[in-house]
Amino acid sequence: MKAPRVPDGLGGPLSEPLFQRLALIGMGLIGSSLARVCRRKGLAHEIIATDSSSAVRARAIELALADRVMETAAAAVEAADLVILCAPVGVMGAIAREIGPRLKPGAIVSDVGSVKASIIKAVAPHLPSMVHFVPSHPVAGTEQSGPEAGFSTLFFNRWTILTPPEGTSPKAVARLASFWTGAGAYVEIMQPAHHDLVLAITSHVPHLIAYNIVGTAADLEEVTRSEVIKFSAGGFRDFTRIAASDPTMWRDIFLNNKEAVLEMLGRFNEDLSALQRMIRNGDAEGLFDLFTRTRAIRRGIIEQGQETAAPDFGRRAGET
Amino acid sequence: MKAPRVPDGLGGPLSEPLFQRLALIGMGLIGSSLARVCRRKGLAHEIIATDSSSAVRARAIELALADRVMETAAAAVEAADLVILCAPVGVMGAIAREIGPRLKPGAIVSDVGSVKASIIKAVAPHLPSMVHFVPSHPVAGTEQSGPEAGFSTLFFNRWTILTPPEGTSPKAVARLASFWTGAGAYVEIMQPAHHDLVLAITSHVPHLIAYNIVGTAADLEEVTRSEVIKFSAGGFRDFTRIAASDPTMWRDIFLNNKEAVLEMLGRFNEDLSALQRMIRNGDAEGLFDLFTRTRAIRRGIIEQGQETAAPDFGRRAGET
Repeated sequence: MKAPRVPDGLGGPLSEPLFQRLALIGMGLIGSSLARVCRRKGLAHEIIATDSSSAVRARAIELALADRVMETAAAAVEAADLVILCAPVGVMGAIAREIGPRLKPGAIVSDVGSVKASIIKAVAPHLPSMVHFVPSHPVAGTEQSGPEAGFSTLFFNRWTILTPPEGTSPKAVARLASFWTGAGAYVEIMQPAHHDLVLAITSHVPHLIAYNIVGTAADLEEVTRSEVIKFSAGGFRDFTRIAASDPTMWRDIFLNNKEAVLEMLGRFNEDLSALQRMIRNGDAEGLFDLFTRTRAIRRGIIEQGQETAAPDFGRRAGET
Repeated sequence: MKAPRVPDGLGGPLSEPLFQRLALIGMGLIGSSLARVCRRKGLAHEIIATDSSSAVRARAIELALADRVMETAAAAVEAADLVILCAPVGVMGAIAREIGPRLKPGAIVSDVGSVKASIIKAVAPHLPSMVHFVPSHPVAGTEQSGPEAGFSTLFFNRWTILTPPEGTSPKAVARLASFWTGAGAYVEIMQPAHHDLVLAITSHVPHLIAYNIVGTAADLEEVTRSEVIKFSAGGFRDFTRIAASDPTMWRDIFLNNKEAVLEMLGRFNEDLSALQRMIRNGDAEGLFDLFTRTRAIRRGIIEQGQETAAPDFGRRAGET
């Protein structure tokens, strides 16, 4: 079901490309969206793509996502002045080992992984000293995966966080920031460890508890799966969206941001115990107080353009 | 921001009304949506409305939601053959006490509360024996409240659960089922206690953990509120929608479905502890397995028309 195209604010191509040759390693949701926006905005003169899956490479060719699609990451990075790793967190180190010796001196290497400290640890040792490693994380996505799922406005009005390790060339950071700005994103610079803590609460723990409650509901015996599905409009279905995200990507995120996730999950559990006690004790005032406080954050998210104000996410927009 | 009106499947008026006079006690999201759909589908010859708030009554008059808007529930139910209580769970008993002596013999009394056993306990004793009490729960809603928030297709393609107490007239149950079918809903009959268990997992616990994580995020010191807002597109914002629901309504639900909620929350907590252990132990296979299993339920929900298949809830429909 394809909705009619609506105008967006991303606009047309820059007067000249920011990079000569961009190599995208991985053509999933993020990699293929980057390919699309780079083409549309003319961010790179030439786009080279690859993916570890031959089926995905074939789709990338059919969809004309890049100027050339190579069979290996090592071949794809040849002469590239910007290389972006768009692969699950768990394979970033292996890709870095493969491409390290083939990187052009002076090239900028980046990635789009959802954790940063562990990626830096896995990737940096494999990169030669004359390339600039500027890790990035575009905080954008949908529950869908693969080269068909991407679209050029995925990053528009969303934040991309750069976490350059100490000593990174400020010029390289600024060039990469311009690239993300060109893709429609806002850019913020952060320490890797702080990034991992912020994302643990804004993304990783939400996914974890969404996966968890969907799992709980699926395993019940007193309530059938058919009942869960029928009556999901009571709130449950909101959780199923992010619990339908790519399993490999999310497995890697939890394995690679263990400490921050467990820390934030600990806070969540403490608060949930308190809330459980309020229900057990019939603490009407405590419940009302929490349920009132939580509205303010959504208002902030809507006001800052990170969410739609339409009721029910606009699922049934236009009904009267 | 009003999206363009799209055609819907609710259709036009019935050839003749199912009820002569419908009294709606409460003009919030549900009551005002009922008023709209009853008008549009001609489900009742005459619609009488009331609300405990004079401001809401005034809005109901401005919006022409009913034929007449009365100042009290007692006045509103006069000569009505269908009375529906559309008020927070905690005040249902008091309304029943007020209207009991004024109900027309043979009238059907229903409600739209999200818990059923405790409402039956609170309401039934106040109703005279010659009226039929058929509790109902339309599993539909948005995070918005008040008479402006309602719309005629709120119940369309959603399930309404009827929980008639033992001994209820089957004819009264069938008449009320026709009413909900006329409003576009599917109807299911259930034991009150089973309803409360099903809704605990499909609605009440999801709301509870959404309120909880939004509260956790709001209270952090290492991560600022501004960071939570900026980077909420990573998943957190999905939770803020249901955590923006009406605080009075939700306080009452948790106070009145304590046992089922604590039971389901216990299951959720057990599963979350197991998941926490998987992360701590780096159990890649266990994580992957859960994250794969949870996709099936969403597929079921989409296939059965209870959810949109558009990525990201269709928040940015039409982008390419």
